[in-house]
Amino acid sequence: MSEITFDGWTCPLPLRDYPTIVMGHGGGGKLSAELIQHLFLPAFANDALTNLGDSAVIQFEGARLAVSTDSFVVRPLFFPGGDIGKLAVHGTVNDVAMSGAKPVYLTCGFIIEEGLPLDTLGRIVDSMATAAREAGVQLIAGDTKVVDKGHGDGVYINTSGIGVIPPGVTIAPNRAQAGDVVLISGTIGDHGMAVMSEREGLQFESDIVSDTAALNGLVTDILAATHDVHVLRDPTRGGVASALNEIARASQVGVVLDERTIPVNPSVQSACDMLGMDPLFVANEGKLLAIVPETVAETVLAVMRRHRLGKDSAIIGRITSDHPGILVARTGIGGTRVIPLQIGEQLPRIC
Amino acid sequence: MSEITFDGWTCPLPLRDYPTIVMGHGGGGKLSAELIQHLFLPAFANDALTNLGDSAVIQFEGARLAVSTDSFVVRPLFFPGGDIGKLAVHGTVNDVAMSGAKPVYLTCGFIIEEGLPLDTLGRIVDSMATAAREAGVQLIAGDTKVVDKGHGDGVYINTSGIGVIPPGVTIAPNRAQAGDVVLISGTIGDHGMAVMSEREGLQFESDIVSDTAALNGLVTDILAATHDVHVLRDPTRGGVASALNEIARASQVGVVLDERTIPVNPSVQSACDMLGMDPLFVANEGKLLAIVPETVAETVLAVMRRHRLGKDSAIIGRITSDHPGILVARTGIGGTRVIPLQIGEQLPRIC
Repeated sequence: MSEITFDGWTCPLPLRDYPTIVMGHGGGGKLSAELIQHLFLPAFANDALTNLGDSAVIQFEGARLAVSTDSFVVRPLFFPGGDIGKLAVHGTVNDVAMSGAKPVYLTCGFIIEEGLPLDTLGRIVDSMATAAREAGVQLIAGDTKVVDKGHGDGVYINTSGIGVIPPGVTIAPNRAQAGDVVLISGTIGDHGMAVMSEREGLQFESDIVSDTAALNGLVTDILAATHDVHVLRDPTRGGVASALNEIARASQVGVVLDERTIPVNPSVQSACDMLGMDPLFVANEGKLLAIVPETVAETVLAVMRRHRLGKDSAIIGRITSDHPGILVARTGIGGTRVIPLQIGEQLPRIC
Repeated sequence: MSEITFDGWTCPLPLRDYPTIVMGHGGGGKLSAELIQHLFLPAFANDALTNLGDSAVIQFEGARLAVSTDSFVVRPLFFPGGDIGKLAVHGTVNDVAMSGAKPVYLTCGFIIEEGLPLDTLGRIVDSMATAAREAGVQLIAGDTKVVDKGHGDGVYINTSGIGVIPPGVTIAPNRAQAGDVVLISGTIGDHGMAVMSEREGLQFESDIVSDTAALNGLVTDILAATHDVHVLRDPTRGGVASALNEIARASQVGVVLDERTIPVNPSVQSACDMLGMDPLFVANEGKLLAIVPETVAETVLAVMRRHRLGKDSAIIGRITSDHPGILVARTGIGGTRVIPLQIGEQLPRIC
């Protein structure tokens, strides 16, 4: 670890604007980034952490392992298309898979609120077990804590995951290069709007269902076709916009989206329109962004479209050496708008 | 994974007595055991999990890794001798070390309550960083979620850990054998009583301080002297009594403690007497139980006593083939009492 004197540690200036934690600190936007940059990184700095991928890459004997951790605090616990248990498995499986790793093991920590009906817990645990089996991962260690009634929200779940990175694969958020092509594996915004509509009791013309799914099979298919993949990312909290902003910064490149090519379910689009939201910022839990060299883009697209979870895949943008660190979108009417990292989040507690 | 039909899953009978989660389900006693046996194990069953050690043992290439996860919900966040951050590092480092592994990496998931002062979070993060540096582990992946004010208690922390088990070392809770000797690395009950006295505002004649500490250095010293160690266990939730009950069951042996030989700080003993508690059931966060063959017991004791964290080490009991699964204590006046697994916990929320 680096030589930081922790005794003299004080909150650096940018954090001083917010002397207490606000919801946005958990939103995957600017506030989350500040917390990481100014608090966690200086304290814990090491190479694996500084990489800031969805998972850390470590070496054991001959094996390169991807390791990731994620806590889930979604409200409500059950929502159209999924539940907190499924989400907790998929979320960490996906974070591990975004290094190109094959996820193998999960650990699971439950923080349960006193008074939670046991059959609710049973349903969640079953859902996790089914999701783990389907994703081909084993749950190898667990822990249960109980907190007093009124603290917690039924159950919070942490999962950590370990996967094996195949030889010859190097995928990381800082590997995007000018000329690369940006692909998305399907429609965006479904998860966030499904949770939101359930929680707020909103009725839309047609039902919106979370896309929560394990993406490791899709990643396996892509890597079977080519190892020439620069970045993979599942655009969860903060959506596609936040994921691409982070990649633009990490790789010091610009990203140009063609807004008309981004697949959005009509029901999600109209719900977003009604609520004044932008689907680019809404969370997904079963989609991935792939950034690959132009030479393999059509191949990767074809592979993705053949997979059950990638049938609506599309090429949605390009990496450029112009405006490094900045994400822009060409709009339907031919203009260009900058899409900044949001301060906090549009939809709190969606994962 | 085993072939269980999850669709038809229902709460088995023993859980039906408690249709909702109660505090005791997180207490490390009988209720915790029921939750594990009747809910988590049937759902997630696999060899690594079924072993029920403090950590799971997995194989990667040539390396055997120990993996563990633990969530921390202690109230208050700061207590004499430590804080939730220190505890979160020590707890998982120790769980990994109890397989004889050298802990190397930690992940960390924060669930933070809206409104937590940033400098409180900063103090906790600093404390974790210092604890990690002192224990020689790197924090390689993290996650932050924020929950609404009033939910959560400032901060909950999950840590997961990965360590490397040295060749030739096989330490597990089911390896205790008749004739083995039981050692403890120091006084018991300090952590639980320190947290309790802080939380309840109790004043005792002298200050009680948590023993929270990373035990991996002590384990390294023991293993440098001999690999002939059968069981290591840090008696946290539920104390020495619960740890030894679990080992008795896992190994199908009896355990006989000599109560007079168990080191207890006088201030902890008198606080326990005053409150009608038994230090055998009070949590420790910087102590280990070692169960070793009689032939090496004196050597191991000498090594432990030379270590800063083991100077009060003592031989406190024996493993017997009588009364398998049962823990008994010979009392000061020559009697013998059975020490059962408790239903729930004397002191909730101590880790």
